[in-house]
Amino acid sequence: MKRAVEAGAPAADAQRRSPKWLARRAEIIDVSAPVFAQRGYHATGITELCAANGLGKGALYHYIGSKEELLAGIHDRVMDEVMAGADRVADTGGTASEQLTMLGDELLDVIHRYPDHVWVFLHEFPALTGERAEQFRVRRREYERRVEAVLQAGIDSGEFREIDPKVTARAWLGMHNYTYLWLKSGGPLSARDVAKPFADIFIRGISSG
Amino acid sequence: MKRAVEAGAPAADAQRRSPKWLARRAEIIDVSAPVFAQRGYHATGITELCAANGLGKGALYHYIGSKEELLAGIHDRVMDEVMAGADRVADTGGTASEQLTMLGDELLDVIHRYPDHVWVFLHEFPALTGERAEQFRVRRREYERRVEAVLQAGIDSGEFREIDPKVTARAWLGMHNYTYLWLKSGGPLSARDVAKPFADIFIRGISSG
Repeated sequence: MKRAVEAGAPAADAQRRSPKWLARRAEIIDVSAPVFAQRGYHATGITELCAANGLGKGALYHYIGSKEELLAGIHDRVMDEVMAGADRVADTGGTASEQLTMLGDELLDVIHRYPDHVWVFLHEFPALTGERAEQFRVRRREYERRVEAVLQAGIDSGEFREIDPKVTARAWLGMHNYTYLWLKSGGPLSARDVAKPFADIFIRGISSG
Repeated sequence: MKRAVEAGAPAADAQRRSPKWLARRAEIIDVSAPVFAQRGYHATGITELCAANGLGKGALYHYIGSKEELLAGIHDRVMDEVMAGADRVADTGGTASEQLTMLGDELLDVIHRYPDHVWVFLHEFPALTGERAEQFRVRRREYERRVEAVLQAGIDSGEFREIDPKVTARAWLGMHNYTYLWLKSGGPLSARDVAKPFADIFIRGISSG
């Protein structure tokens, strides 16, 4: 499908991917996330998305292609930020405990900065179909693997006890992801306020010492 | 509102609360939970609920009152089970570590046994309005307080270090609740398979020793 578009309409594709087009598209994604978060993906019509973005139907479709593509765009926005954080952690290096602490800081920072995107990410992913569902699954799994790799590195170095990296990664992910329900921008707690005690609990919990 | 119904229509109320009525209502709640989980609350129409339950519109309303009341019924079903588990733990007694371990066993058991109810519980609660939203909030908070109380008891006894019971309870709840995404009845892992390593991580993580 993607190949057909690239081969069949190269001019339109190039225009579509201009920096201006991409910037406007990103803006539409950010404006639409709170609309989906508030009303739910299925209950939100194109008319409401047009109104929220101050665009006509044709213009909206020019940037987003379809409602589902917009939903995928919101998911990608979250995953882009989460993976960028994971890359920074890998680049910084350090012990497994330090890496896990940094991963937690980065993840809670994304949840804190993008509450609506994350809400949509965690609630509406079953609405993604076909290739988009698969891409989402792959990206999510890729991040899980990063967490598992840090845990495995800690086991190998003797820093962590003989835990199951998969189940432990899920415990860690649950503890952090679930903060989307109560960790809000402008709320009484910052991402750091939460990341610190969470890291304390988790790293003591899996430490070999 | 409830008082008015009790005073104004005692006969209808009594009939509605007969054991037979209650049993049929519970059955409808259990049949409807997977329908909401699959399609989403807003996207599910009364027609689909009638078809799933093999009931006409009038009969369905006789048991559930409204679609939102049915949603509240699904939430109550989860909370009833979760609170019954918490009561069993309180009745059993033991150290704070033992209590927290048992709370985790009980909570994961509910998530494992009621995957669709829990999915609806965690995804569709924003659709509850007015008194129903408030009741849900109060019950959820009540359970959180049970977890906080066990943590506080452990701090007081010197079993746990000086943690913040609120933030720590949320870490614990997130770690456990989030399993709804992957802990499935008939899946490779039982509730116990997960509860044990989770308790190990968490209790070591907050232990004073």
